[in-house]
Amino acid sequence: MTTDDTTIDQLDAWWRAANYLSIGQIYLLDNPLLREPLAPEHVKPRLLGHWGTTPGLNFLYAHLNRGIRERDLDTLFITGPGHGGPGMVANAWLDGTYSEVYSRIGRDADGIRDLFRQFSFPGGIPSHASPDTPGSIHEGGELGYSLSHAYGAAFDNPELLVACVIGDGEAETGPLATAWHGNKFANPAQDGVVLPILHLNGYKIANPTVLARIPDEELLELMRGYGHEPFLVSGGFDGEDPRLVHARFADTLDVVLDRIAAIKEAARNGTLTERPRWPMIILRTPKGWTCPEVIDGHQVEGSWRSHQVPLANARDTAEHLRILEDWMRSYRPEELFDAEGRPLPTTVALAPEGERRMSANPVANGGLLRTELELPDFRDYAVPVTEPGATALESTAVLGRWLADVIRENPETFRIFGPDETASNRLAPAMYEATDKQWNAELRPGDEHLARAGRVMEVLSEHQCQGWLEGYLLTGRHGLFNTYEAFVHIVDSMFNQHAKWLEASRHIPWRRPISSLNYLLSSHVWRQDHNGFSHQDPGFLDVVANKSAEVVRVYLPFDANTLLSTYDHCLRSVDYVNVVVAGKQPAPQWLAMPEAVEHCTRGLGILPWAGTEVDGREPDVVLAAAGDVPTLEVLAAASILRERIPELAVRVVNVVDLMRLQTAGEHPHGMPDADFDAIFTTDRPIIFAFHGYPWLIHRLSYRRHGHDGLHVRGFVERGTTTTPFDMVMLNDLDRFHLVMDVIDRVPGLAATHGALRQELADARTRARAATRESGQDAEWVREWQWPESALPMKP
Amino acid sequence: MTTDDTTIDQLDAWWRAANYLSIGQIYLLDNPLLREPLAPEHVKPRLLGHWGTTPGLNFLYAHLNRGIRERDLDTLFITGPGHGGPGMVANAWLDGTYSEVYSRIGRDADGIRDLFRQFSFPGGIPSHASPDTPGSIHEGGELGYSLSHAYGAAFDNPELLVACVIGDGEAETGPLATAWHGNKFANPAQDGVVLPILHLNGYKIANPTVLARIPDEELLELMRGYGHEPFLVSGGFDGEDPRLVHARFADTLDVVLDRIAAIKEAARNGTLTERPRWPMIILRTPKGWTCPEVIDGHQVEGSWRSHQVPLANARDTAEHLRILEDWMRSYRPEELFDAEGRPLPTTVALAPEGERRMSANPVANGGLLRTELELPDFRDYAVPVTEPGATALESTAVLGRWLADVIRENPETFRIFGPDETASNRLAPAMYEATDKQWNAELRPGDEHLARAGRVMEVLSEHQCQGWLEGYLLTGRHGLFNTYEAFVHIVDSMFNQHAKWLEASRHIPWRRPISSLNYLLSSHVWRQDHNGFSHQDPGFLDVVANKSAEVVRVYLPFDANTLLSTYDHCLRSVDYVNVVVAGKQPAPQWLAMPEAVEHCTRGLGILPWAGTEVDGREPDVVLAAAGDVPTLEVLAAASILRERIPELAVRVVNVVDLMRLQTAGEHPHGMPDADFDAIFTTDRPIIFAFHGYPWLIHRLSYRRHGHDGLHVRGFVERGTTTTPFDMVMLNDLDRFHLVMDVIDRVPGLAATHGALRQELADARTRARAATRESGQDAEWVREWQWPESALPMKP
Repeated sequence: MTTDDTTIDQLDAWWRAANYLSIGQIYLLDNPLLREPLAPEHVKPRLLGHWGTTPGLNFLYAHLNRGIRERDLDTLFITGPGHGGPGMVANAWLDGTYSEVYSRIGRDADGIRDLFRQFSFPGGIPSHASPDTPGSIHEGGELGYSLSHAYGAAFDNPELLVACVIGDGEAETGPLATAWHGNKFANPAQDGVVLPILHLNGYKIANPTVLARIPDEELLELMRGYGHEPFLVSGGFDGEDPRLVHARFADTLDVVLDRIAAIKEAARNGTLTERPRWPMIILRTPKGWTCPEVIDGHQVEGSWRSHQVPLANARDTAEHLRILEDWMRSYRPEELFDAEGRPLPTTVALAPEGERRMSANPVANGGLLRTELELPDFRDYAVPVTEPGATALESTAVLGRWLADVIRENPETFRIFGPDETASNRLAPAMYEATDKQWNAELRPGDEHLARAGRVMEVLSEHQCQGWLEGYLLTGRHGLFNTYEAFVHIVDSMFNQHAKWLEASRHIPWRRPISSLNYLLSSHVWRQDHNGFSHQDPGFLDVVANKSAEVVRVYLPFDANTLLSTYDHCLRSVDYVNVVVAGKQPAPQWLAMPEAVEHCTRGLGILPWAGTEVDGREPDVVLAAAGDVPTLEVLAAASILRERIPELAVRVVNVVDLMRLQTAGEHPHGMPDADFDAIFTTDRPIIFAFHGYPWLIHRLSYRRHGHDGLHVRGFVERGTTTTPFDMVMLNDLDRFHLVMDVIDRVPGLAATHGALRQELADARTRARAATRESGQDAEWVREWQWPESALPMKP
Repeated sequence: MTTDDTTIDQLDAWWRAANYLSIGQIYLLDNPLLREPLAPEHVKPRLLGHWGTTPGLNFLYAHLNRGIRERDLDTLFITGPGHGGPGMVANAWLDGTYSEVYSRIGRDADGIRDLFRQFSFPGGIPSHASPDTPGSIHEGGELGYSLSHAYGAAFDNPELLVACVIGDGEAETGPLATAWHGNKFANPAQDGVVLPILHLNGYKIANPTVLARIPDEELLELMRGYGHEPFLVSGGFDGEDPRLVHARFADTLDVVLDRIAAIKEAARNGTLTERPRWPMIILRTPKGWTCPEVIDGHQVEGSWRSHQVPLANARDTAEHLRILEDWMRSYRPEELFDAEGRPLPTTVALAPEGERRMSANPVANGGLLRTELELPDFRDYAVPVTEPGATALESTAVLGRWLADVIRENPETFRIFGPDETASNRLAPAMYEATDKQWNAELRPGDEHLARAGRVMEVLSEHQCQGWLEGYLLTGRHGLFNTYEAFVHIVDSMFNQHAKWLEASRHIPWRRPISSLNYLLSSHVWRQDHNGFSHQDPGFLDVVANKSAEVVRVYLPFDANTLLSTYDHCLRSVDYVNVVVAGKQPAPQWLAMPEAVEHCTRGLGILPWAGTEVDGREPDVVLAAAGDVPTLEVLAAASILRERIPELAVRVVNVVDLMRLQTAGEHPHGMPDADFDAIFTTDRPIIFAFHGYPWLIHRLSYRRHGHDGLHVRGFVERGTTTTPFDMVMLNDLDRFHLVMDVIDRVPGLAATHGALRQELADARTRARAATRESGQDAEWVREWQWPESALPMKP
């Protein structure tokens, strides 16, 4: 198969135009089409941007355009080297999308000037392929996630081709290095096709790349080892005519697209029985291809020196200015744009139409495609609670039953992701009555709940889980990521980047809302007593609280019914990150469903049955809790107080929606001060038992009137392999210590109840000793259940 | 080569003994040698531990023992599946190390009983290969870092063999998937050898593993693509006699060790010219090998069901108790231990002697080997500062000159790690006059500062950088990790795990102190104006502050001399994580070296030349800053105040050592309250300009008297591609806003200086508009330098 000269002309014209427009964005304030000699004042005073990766991206975009036109492909373009932002903007402008989305940027010389000026300019657009960039679901500032995003986009999009450009710098990152294994999970019939294009331009910021400096045969083995059929195209070196490279690449792309079509056809008609060896492409071209080869005596083209702005002094030295002008004129803009600055028909002959344009593909603006989930009524899954604390259940297992039906009702738009912990987190067994884990590597007799297609995606890589889910959500679907609380820190930085994406997207009207990213953090800090210190870390909440209040939500439901109510809310929401921490161990159930719904709607509230308040009088002390284990300890403490200091008016408060603690000015969920004061009082001691590190509660409630009287207990980095109750004692969060805190902080009690305080201190000592002796919590601790208040004091 | 029967006997005896002792740890409280029938009370009430991976680890330990004895190898064993903790403890007990280190655990029946009892028991030892475990530098709770640790240990240990067992679960993680490329960096002559052993037992917690479910040929291609020569040994399936597997593996190990010896020899004598294809081993055995094949009708051996505790009800049901007893007796303990419970000579015939024992290798207790760095006097590298702010310099470049000499003075014990940013962070060019970047992939003409051996390690994987450095430090050497501030979040979880390791090690007397893990975070939030929002995130400090105060330190030197003084301190310290944030852009220099040393010694202090205090009188307001950019803004604000409200007594405070803000009870660096009050006052308004998210300052200073008057400005998640000064304005951290804050907070000023406040608000508006117009900061902002105080107000 050979590509004809006209097509080569068109490929080259697009490529030159995109390159020209990219350079213009990096350098020019004015004189966009070089209709007059370039003068210093035409050059931006601060030159910010990345040229090195850009010509490669533009090259691929042009060639994919041809493939799309010839085969009517539905194609999403993912730019791993997202810092090649000017290229993506240039391509979107060339195919017309940019001006449709931003009417301020016309398709003429003025439009080009404005396009150039706004780039990396205060008040303009960022330098990377950000949410501002049409067609992008991937920023690529923090490298490593392009291929995971690509697979996420492909799941349940059977007709979609996801062309994913992976820079050879990005390829060195861990998340990318494992993302290749996505092909063991994607289903050839039900899911779309990911076409990885590894772009070897050979250099990073200041170094060569590893994959560009191993022998070709080793690189091909690596790609075959990853399960692909690799196609290597190399060109553009030593001044090779780009037209030859166009021809070579076009031929290869045709072969690759034929291979893909054949595999898809076999998958559709059921003749595909083995995991296919999907093709992938390695494109080796010079970094900064077509820029000046040598500047100031240094090699620039084909070197790391072309990474950012090859000509740093274009405004300041006549020599650099001349080089810049020559460089830009080398693309022959006069052949690419008409007198008004519109691209000539030959320049954009390859542009697909309408939504076939990669920059206009609605998949890249997932909110356009998003449909609401069909959610079964969570109230139907309620745990009966006739009396608070009378029954014990695994809360996440109850949630699992509801989620199983969410899956049944939404067989194509909802998935659950996790690093091999969905069963451990107790979402099974209910989950696997509704679906299976999707697995397209080898299946063996005896495998349980594994199938070629299924709604649960498990791989032992939190990076993959997070990246897949992000890609799935950004393309208009729904899902959740369940993982161990401590190890969600593995994706701190991915969470950060997604939260920033959401925050930026809020200000871009054409980006439609996408489903929230929902976490389910179980196996949490208080119940990792079997795995020990390395598994005990509730700090993700602190990372989350640093992000824009507009996009983050944190929930700590304390039993099954509050968990159901919370998760129903989360699955309906858009444009947030919802973090839900919930227990998976058998634990007492507190609220019947009507109360649970009311409590979750408020986000925080008094548990009237737990306290000893007298109507019409402020309580003497407020015991507050957030999280299932802290709430249990607070209720036990209240129970001790009722028994032992019956005259004390104790109010018990539980917080499910942590952001309610902030003021209304700080967070959209912030509770008005008057309401907050009515619950927490303005001047009574508040003993707050918190799931996480205690300072987060201080931070959130910092502006509240009652803050000076707030005393928080939480995880203070004391952990080991021990028992659950020993864990709370280690961190002074236990019922005994909470009562001691009350005695210490309520005026007068220290004097009158010193003996009780000592008794409690002794009980702690006894409990710890009993644990070290027997290897388990003392029976009088384990068997204690609300409301048998006396038990915890009487071993 | 064939292994003789006696050796097979010895391998099998060791293996059976280690397996027996592993199971005993998981299950037994007493009757350790089954000298009487097993009764329920001999079984632990809570069964916590991981069997599945353990027999494979024990198998490898036995075989490596043989290799060590026969070849006198210096070998470190790294256990990727660190949850196989009982195995590592068992092996350490068998070779005698355990009893040497823990005299409470003897080498007899009582010792075995205590060994069993303490495991995963309150007050005992954790269930994983934790710092408590002799021979371990790797916990493996959070999977993914074993191979990076292995390379870190191997660097500059030319005679060391690092046998690194990688679980097939761990192999799915991103960090592990890229860690294979460590072989492109290690130098065959100067560094030790890493022998990766991929242990395919086929299953994770609840799923098969990816690498166990691809064809052998694909797996071998993957390993060859990673640059290795793979050797696959499979065995133990369908009841195959373990002796056959011993023979097969022993033969393969001999070949592998021969290969390694040949490559090392060639490297030593200079005949090795190409990067070698180091061997690696794939060992495929059943998960839980040798446990009961079927329990309760379910396949257990060779299944994910053997991952943790195969017999959950051994104490509660007679059937499970019997199965447990049969299982344990299947190892024939009577043939392994003598009447007193001592291991028979035939059981431990393979144990190497002394420090050749893998559990006793001093490399795994790096503090034993650590020597102090030879540090050139940092004062000799001082920047002359005749007047505060008169000169502008890149602070990290100055540090780079000192670090270059640190490298020259310590050519074998100090390395710098970074993800391709050492030059970007300005440690070059000085650095590359002293050394090169180590690179053992292909070298090409024109490569700069790349060499087969060098002290700088650059790979575009923060995980690798962190893991290599951890391995390097844990084996007794020194180093630092320089990276972009925002992207250090990529290793949040690795930092967490290392901090937990350090915290746990503090309580283990035989673990000797290791060098601190030093970060240099540059390209920080305030100067990522060119890369934009995705690169702007100072939240790592919040993650760090959550860890034990005993092990974390945070420094924000605000010029070159304070940076030099700080880093000298960091490189001398042990057992900490030191986080240093420093600017790389040209910035004013404030303190001459004597003042810098004094200031850094105090950690925080008044800058007397910057304020307008009158002796003997409390100031009206305190302007405090931490970080280079905030300090510049505070100094500019003080300058405006001096000019415009000369009657106001302003104190300017700078904080370098952030933990000084905490009380002495909270952190070892905490400043006594009286000292703190003397600096910050107890009742005057404090306007604090902070480098990071503002709440961290509140959190640290929460218990201080003056806290109620503290008002903090910092990064509030507003960012984009813009100018440096626009960045501070976006976050209300700019000089103008700080003066407005003073006017708002000092009693009386609002009434008297309303016009000035308006003027400042207007100046902000003008500055922002000028930036948006010109693309750069207004000249009157850019050119402002202390002490030209009037300038910033007069555009």
